[in-house]
Amino acid sequence: MSATVRLFEVSLRDGLQNEPVVVSTQDKLAVAHQLVEAGFKDIEVTSFVRPRWVPQLADATDLVRQLPYAPDVRYWALVPNAIGLDRALEAGLDHIATFLSSSETHNKKNVNRTISESLRALGSVIERAVAEDVRVRSYISTAFGCPFEGPVAPERVVELASALLDAGATEIALGDTTGMANPAQVKSLLRRLVAAGVPLERIGVHFHDTRGTAVVNAYAAWQEGIRMFDGAVSGVGGCPYAPGAAGNAATQDLIHMFHEMGVSTGVDLDRACDVGVLLESVLGRELPGRYHQYWRAQQERRQSRSA
Amino acid sequence: MSATVRLFEVSLRDGLQNEPVVVSTQDKLAVAHQLVEAGFKDIEVTSFVRPRWVPQLADATDLVRQLPYAPDVRYWALVPNAIGLDRALEAGLDHIATFLSSSETHNKKNVNRTISESLRALGSVIERAVAEDVRVRSYISTAFGCPFEGPVAPERVVELASALLDAGATEIALGDTTGMANPAQVKSLLRRLVAAGVPLERIGVHFHDTRGTAVVNAYAAWQEGIRMFDGAVSGVGGCPYAPGAAGNAATQDLIHMFHEMGVSTGVDLDRACDVGVLLESVLGRELPGRYHQYWRAQQERRQSRSA
Repeated sequence: MSATVRLFEVSLRDGLQNEPVVVSTQDKLAVAHQLVEAGFKDIEVTSFVRPRWVPQLADATDLVRQLPYAPDVRYWALVPNAIGLDRALEAGLDHIATFLSSSETHNKKNVNRTISESLRALGSVIERAVAEDVRVRSYISTAFGCPFEGPVAPERVVELASALLDAGATEIALGDTTGMANPAQVKSLLRRLVAAGVPLERIGVHFHDTRGTAVVNAYAAWQEGIRMFDGAVSGVGGCPYAPGAAGNAATQDLIHMFHEMGVSTGVDLDRACDVGVLLESVLGRELPGRYHQYWRAQQERRQSRSA
Repeated sequence: MSATVRLFEVSLRDGLQNEPVVVSTQDKLAVAHQLVEAGFKDIEVTSFVRPRWVPQLADATDLVRQLPYAPDVRYWALVPNAIGLDRALEAGLDHIATFLSSSETHNKKNVNRTISESLRALGSVIERAVAEDVRVRSYISTAFGCPFEGPVAPERVVELASALLDAGATEIALGDTTGMANPAQVKSLLRRLVAAGVPLERIGVHFHDTRGTAVVNAYAAWQEGIRMFDGAVSGVGGCPYAPGAAGNAATQDLIHMFHEMGVSTGVDLDRACDVGVLLESVLGRELPGRYHQYWRAQQERRQSRSA
């Protein structure tokens, strides 16, 4: 088994998008700087959706133009459509991410299109991006279940993954948007994708910890050969109106598990925890990540001892 | 693979023992009643250590004498030594649990004995219990790492497990006392135990979620064939002085994962969540279990809608 995994950090996009507070561009840049310092190589920084849809990310262009120079880091941004792609290109990005859902209801609520309309529109976005030498990641949301429709047919996910890769996406990311996946299902879906000819190294997994299964699902995916894992520092981006509710897989929980198993991530766990502390101060709330909370408690104990 | 697992509920003992609040016997009985109603068949209710060591469990005899009558439920209590066994027998229990650590420093700090002194003393406790037709579970604490010594030699755990089973213990429980285990290590230790002739069906696993790995470790153990899992409702029993810090594996997180995989636990997940809500009100603090928090947020949303 490969002793290295690739972590895809989504706290600045998926995390902040789901927080009620609008974080300033300067604070986001401080977070980006610390993420780079911690060793992250894939950082999703923002989204070029219409600013009024997601006010938290309305500073996308400004932010991208001031990102810390780091030639070995890939900065990614979400683009919903051709206009979003234009804005991302104008801002100078060469890594973009598209998204659609694998359930009709979720896709309709999210982008007001049917899945096949989305697929058609994204096809030309991806084509143009590729022509501009831009690398494309394509999210498939609700891949393990939809909060409106319930179960999602795995065939549908396989079909979408194949179509997106055929259209030119470099990689796909399977999104467990509301934390409904279980490890047996993760394994079964991945095996179907591989059987349908989707190369394992082009599949990323994006879990949410809503029901406490993000880490176990990541482990199940790792056992199947997956080496690309999305996470957000300290699990930022939960449903902030439900105190304690969890959001994205907490990056540090993944790092801790992998390092303990002898799998390298390229990221310094303590520095990733520093980012979590910064995010908490910026957001003015405690973040739910387990390792984050353990680490913070240890720090506080040390400080009270030396005080 | 077997489609059933056995859950061993430790919230009334390991959970409450690590909470600062002393819960009244009446409240404990209400919890016990709800645990039985939820379908738990193995419930660890208290500990017969000296009351001044663990004031939270000082009502052990009183509590046991008033437990709800449920002939298909096994009520367990921890006993540290011969005097503890006497008290447990007097109270009318026929299921006891012994404990020792697999690291010298932890054992010394915990019971002020060397491991071999503990083993000798427990040998006669177990022998006498068996002679009285009492079933014995033997915990091996710090089996995956010691907060004082760091790594624990797996040979040591194998040796202790074999010795305790030879002495007459019906089952052993591998305790990850401070949440240091990782899934690769769990698999490796279990394989060593099996290779040494310890029957899988006599091994339980007792994980803590300190660093976010309780569920993934349980899954790794399940993949190896383990079918007995300890948990505490809503993850009660964390370090209460570190807000948000996690304690025992949250029983509902385990139930949720197993049910979603089609594995039966015999427990009603919603009713287990009711117990968590009761525990929160009794303890006067929010509990950290992920599924618990998700479930409570759903309940609150429903209530605010219907209000």
